[in-house]
This record gives sequence, structure tokens and C-alpha cells, in this order.
Amino acid sequence: MSFIDRLDETARAHRSLLGVNLDPWGPSMPIDDIAAFNRAIIDATHDLVCVYKPNSAFYEARGIDGLRALQETVEAAHARGVPVILDAKRGDIGNTSVAYAKAAFEVWGADAVTVSPYMGGDSLEPFLAYEDRGVFVLTRTSNPGAADIEELTVETPGGARPLYEQVAIAAGGWNTRGNVGLVVGATAPDELARIRALAPGMPILVPGVGAQGGDLEASVRNGVDADGRRAVIAVGRAVIYASKGPGYAQAARAEADRLRGAINAELDAMGLGWS
Amino acid sequence: MSFIDRLDETARAHRSLLGVNLDPWGPSMPIDDIAAFNRAIIDATHDLVCVYKPNSAFYEARGIDGLRALQETVEAAHARGVPVILDAKRGDIGNTSVAYAKAAFEVWGADAVTVSPYMGGDSLEPFLAYEDRGVFVLTRTSNPGAADIEELTVETPGGARPLYEQVAIAAGGWNTRGNVGLVVGATAPDELARIRALAPGMPILVPGVGAQGGDLEASVRNGVDADGRRAVIAVGRAVIYASKGPGYAQAARAEADRLRGAINAELDAMGLGWS
Repeated sequence: MSFIDRLDETARAHRSLLGVNLDPWGPSMPIDDIAAFNRAIIDATHDLVCVYKPNSAFYEARGIDGLRALQETVEAAHARGVPVILDAKRGDIGNTSVAYAKAAFEVWGADAVTVSPYMGGDSLEPFLAYEDRGVFVLTRTSNPGAADIEELTVETPGGARPLYEQVAIAAGGWNTRGNVGLVVGATAPDELARIRALAPGMPILVPGVGAQGGDLEASVRNGVDADGRRAVIAVGRAVIYASKGPGYAQAARAEADRLRGAINAELDAMGLGWS
Repeated sequence: MSFIDRLDETARAHRSLLGVNLDPWGPSMPIDDIAAFNRAIIDATHDLVCVYKPNSAFYEARGIDGLRALQETVEAAHARGVPVILDAKRGDIGNTSVAYAKAAFEVWGADAVTVSPYMGGDSLEPFLAYEDRGVFVLTRTSNPGAADIEELTVETPGGARPLYEQVAIAAGGWNTRGNVGLVVGATAPDELARIRALAPGMPILVPGVGAQGGDLEASVRNGVDADGRRAVIAVGRAVIYASKGPGYAQAARAEADRLRGAINAELDAMGLGWS
């Protein structure tokens, strides 16, 4: 089964477009063992989400032990039947991208990975060649620095447009196997709407709701496809650090449940609820 | 001492602008133990190079054991007094970039790292904050797919120009601590000359000579600064796989010596030899 089918199926089964970012970092952690922390979060929230999204950086920053915890985290999600997007923003050329794809999909075991479009389509081909995995292309990110490069106006055969729109169009061309998605930050709802119009069928990963200030309702409204599906509203800190006390996992569950409810209320208001 | 001072000093001491890519990969390997392989290459070539450049992908593809080998490789280079650029092409936002910078500089111990400019200046700030380390920004890469995004024409206050030129200009703005360099593929010598003109003082990392077909003399001529310095001609397969037999380390030394000689002959022809 393709990654996108697995994502769709998990979303339908759990009636949820919520993704949870598993980004264990420093002083916010209620316990120091990040594998045990993630397992507790997964055990408490797996029936409320469509995907988990660990960001590789937080595991790499803890070295060998951290990367072992990443493997255990992917296994814990899979044991609960939930697919995993490894947020890694990789991209390189030739056999180097082959090695990165092998690491993401075979060593760490992810179902999908985020990649950077800067180096072009051939840099992503080794990831795309894994037909049953997903490849999410950075398009318009949630940070202020998006203005530096992503928002530059580029000349294209279809006229002048922001670079991130051209990336969305190029990603459509790279999607010969039906396994490409896009990453668009929740802090840019108008841009999200334009990108959705350029890529009507692709899954869009929408991080930035919560600590980064993105608007949940606008992210749902502008991010979903015509059927009200294929957006992942990815929330991190608001869920995993809902409490720093011993009840952190139950607090995470309560916040995930609240967010799923808010997403589904917006889908209902659009007439696109789970029925 | 800053990274760039260390790079300059090693280049001067070894009369060499040659960097060696330590990219151990698959069937080309004469022995299977990649840490031992790299140590043998380093022991045989350290006095002929200004830097080593391991690409993170090849270590990640071997999982936990591979990353342990990466740490050992960095230590082996440092034991020989040669700085290390970790080719990782990282980039993310906020505390995620903080975590990546910590991984590159503190966990793996690199002296410099390559990063992607796509997400903008704030995504690179946590790397740049390590004032004694170097940050090489992908500008114009050596692959055919560079045409997809990097070569798009963008509108700038100074007029229309290719995106990679705007990245070189933006990198100048990000260089408030004097620790920024650029990455420009050897397969694009004309673009290299234009980028050097936009960034007269920055070190430029020039991969793509050898297996990728880049021209060594043109890379030297167009890549160095006005003093004939600050370019790293980074060669991988041609050196490390010069032989697949038991004499691979001595074969690597012979090829590194030949490449250093060819680089220095070009500097002499420019009247910019080591004197």
C-alpha cells in the first residue's frame, strides 16, 4: 500500500487530520529518556492522530543514543499502526541522495520524509524511487526568513510568481509515482490557499499551529483538498509539553483530543465532516 | 582561532587547496570497515590537503555503526591537524536548527558544515552563532537539476538575476561574523566566476572535479580569491577509490599529490603560487 493510502486510511479510521510532532528538546522535557517519553505520548494519543512526525535534528543532537531512540520511536508508532514522517529536510545529489533515502526509509524506518527542493528534481529522485514511501517537499515554511528566498519573485513560462509557487508546480512534475506531498507553514494561510489550488490532490503537511502562532481553522480551511482531506495539521509543543508533570501523557491526550475536535468542527462547518 | 583562519593556515602549511571527500559507499570500498578505511586515507594524505569533507549521508546510511565511524573519522582528521567540513546540507527553523548545529559541531565535532539557504537567514542563524565554526551555504550545485530552482531568474532590487547569485548576495548579508562560505559545483565554471565576483573574500567549496566531470583548472582559476586562496577543490572518488586493492591508501596519496600539483601549477600560471 502506498504511503498516501496509509495516511488516508489512518486519518479515516481515527477521524483525524492531526499529526503530532515528536520533537523532544531540552528543558521542556518532563523526563530525560526520550524513547520512553515518545512511547508514552504515542500510547496516549495514537487513536487521535493520522501520523507522527519526529524531526531528525532533536535525535541527532543527542548523538548515538538519540538515534537509537529515533529507531525505537518509529517502531512504537508502527506498533500502534500509525505511519511516520521523518522531518529531515534532506537533499543532495546522485548517490549521496541514494544514501540519504536509504537512511530515512531503511535504517530509521520512516514511511515518509521531508526534503528540500533547492537542488532540483534529480536530487529528489532517489527518495521518489521508493514508490511506497512519501516525499514531502518544502514549499513555503512558517518562519520569517521565508521572505529571503522562498518569496522571491521568479520568472516562469506562466508569468512572474513567488518561488514557493514555482516549487509547488515543479513538485507536480516530480510526482510521476503519486508519492509527493508539500510542506506549507500554518503561519501563511493565504499562501497555503494558493498552493492548494496549484496542487489539488497532494497531501499538504502544515506545521506551525500552536507555539509558532499559526491559525488552526485557517490551516484546515485552506489546506484540505476538495473532499476535506489530505492535510496534516502538525502540532508539536502544545501537545507533547501540555504538562511537564507526571501526568504529561494524559495531558497530551487531552490536548490532542481538543485539537482533533477543533479540526473536525471546521470540517463540519465546511460540510466536509467524516460522516 | 576561527574556522577560516584554520583553513587558511592548513592550506598554507600544506601548500594545498585540495579537499578530500570522505564518502565511503558500497561496492567501491576496498575494505568494509569505514572508520579504518577513512583513517588509512587520512594517514596517507593529511599533509597534502587543507580539509576533509565527509558527507553525512554515507554514515547515516549505515545507521548507528556508521555514525560512530563518523565521529572516529573527525577525530582522526583532528589528530592530524586537518579541519573537517561536515557536508550535511542542513537547514530548519528555530530550535530545530539549534539542535542541528549542536549535532554538527558538538556531537560529531565538525569545524564547518554545509547548509541549504532555502528557508532563509533565520534558519541559518543558530549555525552562524558558533563564531569559531564555518557555515558553507549551497549556492550553485554541480547537478543537472540545478536548472530547476537554483537557476530560476529572480527579481531583486539590483535587477533580474539567477537565484544562485541572489543566494550569494544574501549570504554576504548573513556573514556578520566572518564565518560564511559558499558551495559552487565545479561543473559550472562560468557561474563560479560570477559568484566569486559577488563574494570576493569568502571561502568557496568547489566539489565536482573528477567523477562528476568538473574541470580542475577552470575551478582553480575561477574559484580562488584575488590572492589565489580561499577555494577548496574537493575531490572524492578519484582519490579515495584510486585503487580498490590493498594498496588503496598509497594510491590515494599518489592521486592527491597529483591533484595538488595540478592545482598549484594553475596557481603558478596565474602568478599566485605559494612562493
